[in-house]
Amino acid sequence: MKYESTQQALSCLRKLEQTLAAYNHVTGVLYLDATTAAPSDTWEGRGKTMEVMSQVTYDLLANPENGELLSYLEEHSGELDAQARRETEVVRKNYDQIHRIPAEEYVAYSVLINDAESVWHRAKLADDFDAFAPYLEKITECNRKFAGYYHPEMQPYDALLNEYEEGMNTKTLDAFFAQLRETIVPLIAKIQKAPRIDDAFLYRRYPVEIQRKLSDYLMGVMGIDRTHCGIAETEHPYTTNFNNKDVRITTHYYENNLVSSMFSVIHEGGHALYELGADDCYNYTALSGGVSMGIHESQSRFYENIIGRSPAFVHAVFPKLKELFPEQLSDVNEDKFYRAINKAEPSLIRTEADELTYCLHIMVRYEIEKQLIAGTLAVRDVPGEWKRLYKEYLGVDVPSDREGCLQDSHWSGGSIGYFPSYALGSAYGAQMLSKMQEEIGDIWGDVAKGDLGKVTGWLRSHIHRYASFQKPGELFRSVCGEFDAKYYTDYLTEKYTKLYNL
Amino acid sequence: MKYESTQQALSCLRKLEQTLAAYNHVTGVLYLDATTAAPSDTWEGRGKTMEVMSQVTYDLLANPENGELLSYLEEHSGELDAQARRETEVVRKNYDQIHRIPAEEYVAYSVLINDAESVWHRAKLADDFDAFAPYLEKITECNRKFAGYYHPEMQPYDALLNEYEEGMNTKTLDAFFAQLRETIVPLIAKIQKAPRIDDAFLYRRYPVEIQRKLSDYLMGVMGIDRTHCGIAETEHPYTTNFNNKDVRITTHYYENNLVSSMFSVIHEGGHALYELGADDCYNYTALSGGVSMGIHESQSRFYENIIGRSPAFVHAVFPKLKELFPEQLSDVNEDKFYRAINKAEPSLIRTEADELTYCLHIMVRYEIEKQLIAGTLAVRDVPGEWKRLYKEYLGVDVPSDREGCLQDSHWSGGSIGYFPSYALGSAYGAQMLSKMQEEIGDIWGDVAKGDLGKVTGWLRSHIHRYASFQKPGELFRSVCGEFDAKYYTDYLTEKYTKLYNL
Repeated sequence: MKYESTQQALSCLRKLEQTLAAYNHVTGVLYLDATTAAPSDTWEGRGKTMEVMSQVTYDLLANPENGELLSYLEEHSGELDAQARRETEVVRKNYDQIHRIPAEEYVAYSVLINDAESVWHRAKLADDFDAFAPYLEKITECNRKFAGYYHPEMQPYDALLNEYEEGMNTKTLDAFFAQLRETIVPLIAKIQKAPRIDDAFLYRRYPVEIQRKLSDYLMGVMGIDRTHCGIAETEHPYTTNFNNKDVRITTHYYENNLVSSMFSVIHEGGHALYELGADDCYNYTALSGGVSMGIHESQSRFYENIIGRSPAFVHAVFPKLKELFPEQLSDVNEDKFYRAINKAEPSLIRTEADELTYCLHIMVRYEIEKQLIAGTLAVRDVPGEWKRLYKEYLGVDVPSDREGCLQDSHWSGGSIGYFPSYALGSAYGAQMLSKMQEEIGDIWGDVAKGDLGKVTGWLRSHIHRYASFQKPGELFRSVCGEFDAKYYTDYLTEKYTKLYNL
Repeated sequence: MKYESTQQALSCLRKLEQTLAAYNHVTGVLYLDATTAAPSDTWEGRGKTMEVMSQVTYDLLANPENGELLSYLEEHSGELDAQARRETEVVRKNYDQIHRIPAEEYVAYSVLINDAESVWHRAKLADDFDAFAPYLEKITECNRKFAGYYHPEMQPYDALLNEYEEGMNTKTLDAFFAQLRETIVPLIAKIQKAPRIDDAFLYRRYPVEIQRKLSDYLMGVMGIDRTHCGIAETEHPYTTNFNNKDVRITTHYYENNLVSSMFSVIHEGGHALYELGADDCYNYTALSGGVSMGIHESQSRFYENIIGRSPAFVHAVFPKLKELFPEQLSDVNEDKFYRAINKAEPSLIRTEADELTYCLHIMVRYEIEKQLIAGTLAVRDVPGEWKRLYKEYLGVDVPSDREGCLQDSHWSGGSIGYFPSYALGSAYGAQMLSKMQEEIGDIWGDVAKGDLGKVTGWLRSHIHRYASFQKPGELFRSVCGEFDAKYYTDYLTEKYTKLYNL
């Protein structure tokens, strides 16, 4: 045995984790640069660098010596504290996955993704699905293959779901989505018979430089520490974190749309608070960062919808909105604003969708992903299936692929199995709200004063601080008990029944 | 011998070069992010990542197997083409240097630099030299030690000069600076008796958002391909390049100063053209990027001063300036503008200095660096010596360290021996101008039309395209013959005699 002591083996593990964290940091910054600042025609050199970084990451993690190291630590797990045991467990999972993937496949995939993202971007602008299709085919094929490497015992799509939400599977999701549809579809039907809400004022001219000020203000209200969290502008908003003291969110401003960037900032701000709230001890280890996309989206969508689209939050921020946009909002009061930002109406674009119809957008993607990975849907048939499902689920006609199956960046980024996290996260969030109020009482009085301290404090102490220390299912259960979608369907029913006087 | 063929050994070398290029790329992007976008309090995690990247870079390059590889290639150099031979030579130089530095010193230095840059930044803002002094002490000490590792046969400061301009030494520079002083000091004396040029209008209110438009316009006039070159904003302007298709410049806008960013953009644009003009074959090899800081500064200062501050260039861009700033320039004509941007007056800040007094600022730094590295000047005495030399060389009183020895970022970045490159580059540029006009005739007619095609074409075919394929001295001689500072002193004398009617 080459390790002298458990302590020494643990040092080796931590050195490995720190190196991997550094590689994640630099590749994360490369991506941030690519999407925020890089000139348009610079992807080739970045691809070469990603290829190298992907290769060195593979070589580092897939090294068989790590298998020996992990076995040693597993044999001596009694001498490890809980954090070290969990670090061993997570590195073991990552090692087992990566060393099953042949090096050349791993590196080729990272090159493919780098290329696919720039091709997707151009294809979307040009409404040219055919340009993107060969990449989506390769990405689908790789994901199907990787699923077999990750969890040979599972159905491929279940294996992919596990990447974003450990323990999740199609059986659970099928039931979850069926339950959601049972609530949402009749609600939408009733709403469509109710008087339409007027939200035209949200699409007046809102100068981008003033929207930028609004973003700063909103981040302030959310209590986001700007010495540790930046904001940049990208085509598609996202959050990235390098450690718990360096988090970045992005947004996209549209001059004729006040709410797009407003709610994307609150959404990404929710992701950011999760990352910023992690305990320091997890930095530079395999436990840094949020534990799953479902838990992550529970935080982002909690702030975006449960808080951000609440009457109390509108009460808190409306004076500032009036101050920033006095002319645009001259004929608007708080109540009109609240109703407008909650208007429920089937539409084309997921990221712009209201809280009620949002999950139907997810279901379209979920159904398509299931079929793509199962091989029962060809990539060339995705646009048609997309249109069919939008008609069936949302009742809308999709006029172009740009507003259809090319709208999201996830597939071009290699993420198949991610979308359900948004719906799961929304449901997790509703159950957390219930638990939070059970424990600390009413939160809305504070929110109406623009004070999110109690809300964020509860989330921090129950969720954020643990980073990836607990598995998502365990974490959720330890905080909220068994997951039950009824909290979410009840929340939606109550909110929209009241809003539309149904 | 473990290499089967020269071709196979060359493949190994190229793989090493490509990996090093990737590490340079990612650490370069980290630095770009740190200076342009990162929130203020994120240096700690970046330091950890830099430490890891520094360690893996060291491990990769200092690996004794590289010594064997290089020896093999050197023994078979007859089978290598000129580029491969030069790649071998450059990697040999880098390998010999790095493997003499103990790993822990190498990594500790990169951590020191990361810390020093943030300390310097705060020290400068707070005018607090004492806060920065301990870092400057350590940086000086490390540089002195590294100088011994690099070139044990040289005086330490000569060894450091060689890092930025291969073949340069204090003997040559002492003579060069003496020659410059002989021209510049009497010229300044005469100018101080001539009527003062009025440049007050340059310091009116120039809104930053319009200055940004000016930057875009100037980059356009310079023929910089924006699909391969970005611009960002930093405290201290600089240029960085990841490959010949991905170059970034930065600038700093001051609302009450039109020329600071204007000429920093032209200066950095000159650096950028050099990098963008390299032949593709050098990408991802040890020959990518400009060959020395002296040659680099010859390009930046050529565009900034010889072109940018010429009557012809002013003629070309003045209409756009009037269009962008009609009120601020309402009482200014082309001639008044030309005279104002060339006003010679001893001042405090190097980067804002006019073309004539600029080299005196360099000489102050050169004298201090020589003494610091020789150990004849203590770090705590730097502020005093700085003040003394500014009084002696420029006749000005330095009121604070912020406007004194804390003004530049070079020392905090670990660059000791860099400054002379600026003066050398200026002189190189004047000699290149002479050669250029000898070969292609008058350039000013085109410049006056805003057409820099011929100028940049000549520089590209004579300098830019070669990247680091030739040593700086060889490259310069092959283009211009022996270096002679007289081209520069003649250029300055002619320009300022005419401008001030001396």
